[in-house]
Amino acid sequence: MQTGDAELLRAINRYRVLDAIRRFEPISRSDICERTQLGRTTVSAIIGELIESGVVSSEPHDAAHTGRGRPRDFLRMNPDLAYVVGAKLSMHQVSITVTNLRADLFASEILPVRTWRLTPDVIADLLEDGIRAAIAKAGIDENKIAGIGVGIPGFINAVTGTSHWSPILGEEIVPFAAMLQERLGIATIIENDANLVTLAERWFGEGQDVDNFVVVTVEGGIGMGLFLGGELFHGHHGIGTEFGHSKIDRHGPLCRCGQHGCIETYIADYAIYREARKLLDLPPIDHDNPALEVAVSDVAVRARAGDMRLRALYEEAGAMLGMGIANLVNIIDPGKVVVTGSGMRAADLIEPSLRKVALENSLAMLRGSCEIVIHQGTDEVWARGAAALVLQSLFRQPWSDRTGMTLPFEQDGAQDTAIRFPAALAEGDA
Amino acid sequence: MQTGDAELLRAINRYRVLDAIRRFEPISRSDICERTQLGRTTVSAIIGELIESGVVSSEPHDAAHTGRGRPRDFLRMNPDLAYVVGAKLSMHQVSITVTNLRADLFASEILPVRTWRLTPDVIADLLEDGIRAAIAKAGIDENKIAGIGVGIPGFINAVTGTSHWSPILGEEIVPFAAMLQERLGIATIIENDANLVTLAERWFGEGQDVDNFVVVTVEGGIGMGLFLGGELFHGHHGIGTEFGHSKIDRHGPLCRCGQHGCIETYIADYAIYREARKLLDLPPIDHDNPALEVAVSDVAVRARAGDMRLRALYEEAGAMLGMGIANLVNIIDPGKVVVTGSGMRAADLIEPSLRKVALENSLAMLRGSCEIVIHQGTDEVWARGAAALVLQSLFRQPWSDRTGMTLPFEQDGAQDTAIRFPAALAEGDA
Repeated sequence: MQTGDAELLRAINRYRVLDAIRRFEPISRSDICERTQLGRTTVSAIIGELIESGVVSSEPHDAAHTGRGRPRDFLRMNPDLAYVVGAKLSMHQVSITVTNLRADLFASEILPVRTWRLTPDVIADLLEDGIRAAIAKAGIDENKIAGIGVGIPGFINAVTGTSHWSPILGEEIVPFAAMLQERLGIATIIENDANLVTLAERWFGEGQDVDNFVVVTVEGGIGMGLFLGGELFHGHHGIGTEFGHSKIDRHGPLCRCGQHGCIETYIADYAIYREARKLLDLPPIDHDNPALEVAVSDVAVRARAGDMRLRALYEEAGAMLGMGIANLVNIIDPGKVVVTGSGMRAADLIEPSLRKVALENSLAMLRGSCEIVIHQGTDEVWARGAAALVLQSLFRQPWSDRTGMTLPFEQDGAQDTAIRFPAALAEGDA
Repeated sequence: MQTGDAELLRAINRYRVLDAIRRFEPISRSDICERTQLGRTTVSAIIGELIESGVVSSEPHDAAHTGRGRPRDFLRMNPDLAYVVGAKLSMHQVSITVTNLRADLFASEILPVRTWRLTPDVIADLLEDGIRAAIAKAGIDENKIAGIGVGIPGFINAVTGTSHWSPILGEEIVPFAAMLQERLGIATIIENDANLVTLAERWFGEGQDVDNFVVVTVEGGIGMGLFLGGELFHGHHGIGTEFGHSKIDRHGPLCRCGQHGCIETYIADYAIYREARKLLDLPPIDHDNPALEVAVSDVAVRARAGDMRLRALYEEAGAMLGMGIANLVNIIDPGKVVVTGSGMRAADLIEPSLRKVALENSLAMLRGSCEIVIHQGTDEVWARGAAALVLQSLFRQPWSDRTGMTLPFEQDGAQDTAIRFPAALAEGDA
């Protein structure tokens, strides 16, 4: 047997054990043997390593122990094995969080700044200072930060750590992960913001039990994350998939992208406000003005107060989003669709027509159910997404090697942002 | 090391060697070592097994051999190791082919019959007789047929071998693979017809070098196959994805499915003919009448002869298909889109507007190229698809285990249609 083979085998077995502990904790050794189909000796050796390195902790079994046989211990992941910094670049603010691997929040910072007016260098400087402040606030040793995960709107290549187009970082290719990593000396991954939400749903939310699901984020723009076959799908070019500018009406209204009938032009904040101005005496507000979100909230309040024209406006917006979701359901056949983001603060006004049109126009009934979950989400989603980015690199399937579906680590041409368990286990990761 | 581990390891190594031979044949032993990163001893042992069982053949190296060192042999897959029966159920005919693993055609049969008027049992009887006749015509021993692959329009679960909805087999769940397998005693796989075309493109056509691509088939209806991350994607419910009834205009014309603005209602044969009847004095022809295909060909002939109204009709149909393809390109980000099927006999009339609208409405430029290939395809595509179905089971990645992405073999609840290399290697396949 080749050395490489033995190492692969070791990595596969360790992955199986860790994955069983993560998914079914607290779990006994014999349950691990059963779930992994590995022998007791192999499992015990791996658990010994994991406990020694602090990845897993063992606790005595109490209540259920009957006194027969030898006492059993139960195993858990150690959530404080490492800490994670999460950051989210929005048009109008920078959010920073510090969590452990279970996404428990230790500190958060919000910098109210119009990011799109700043250069990538200035944004990186801002993040550097903000992250150092957040880590200090959390009282955590910087050496215990496993990695930084940053969510950015636009076309982001997570493997190379570059932004290819972003309303914040511009239209040039920007090696933003490396820029941060140089400043802070901590492994940094950048990811499209909707993909980060998708990872958060996978590890901590609606996607835990479904290997094919779609997340649609409704905010200033419309984002999408595709989770297919148990992995985030980044598309053939590795910079993500796109939903907001798919078309549902060739002769529909002009979108800010210059095309017609994009889904975004029916449901994004600026679209709601554009339609509301046709009905109410409202001042013009540019789509990149932070006042827009407040103004749109006010439109929703008026609709709830009983303005039937505004209610009809939201109903129509919900119908168009439902139409787009029906197309997604037809084309992808996901097990679940999660609709989230600040736009879902108006879920009460949008949801009935969204569900009706999505159901009427999709083949979900023919295939079996596709659940649509609508929730507004919270700011914690970014912290969870960042924790998930690090978790997915720790729990990388050792046999995963497919083009277009690989996790964002250890590819040719990738920057060196590999996130690994502490040193005791590093040798097995080769 | 556990027995299961050793077997997995052996399967992985054999897969690597076989895959290198298949992809780069003729290939030398040292090239195999280089490409697989396996040692000479391991590779030689595996090749010995493969040659002994007839999977691989060795040929002496001639021209390039310089006389230095020991003589080298080059290795190839043996295309006549096994034979494959392919069948395609269409609304108006049943096609049957017999090929080897390289899809070289040994015999073909076409039965002109309106399948949709027959019960599944009668169709299975027809196929049984037709397949026996084709095998006899090819002069091949039935024991050398590795499997039967059948393409069927509709929602087909390839894992369980059942049709869940098909214009031919009806709306009930029909265990059609088992029905054929019982009659013929040969492992049988059924697959959606567009998926079969997609597999043919993967193994023998446009998809050989791209791990993420989409095939759109334009015929009586519109089909789609999604090849993602190196595997056919069957959707969360395992019965396929759907493009023809995704919507590009909420207020568009009524589709035969009862919904509005489906892509099919702009580009399928019946849609072209519906529009042509608005311009020409043509008799009504039902969408399930075989005369429709001939009548539509005649419309194309008149357009080519210079009828500008008919040319505009095709231009509009091409534009609407281009719109749908733009949505696919945005949502999936494939590396390539292949548009094929009998509808592409009119490619000369459709292609310019299709390409223009697809380009104008997609983000392909931002991401990098997405090539659109348009070709009419040939009847051989079904034979190739069936050969590919068998090939993909022989070349199954041993570590592939993802929900929704697994190949159609050896899953829980799956019928016993496993196709394997000859007996000499069977023990390693466990």
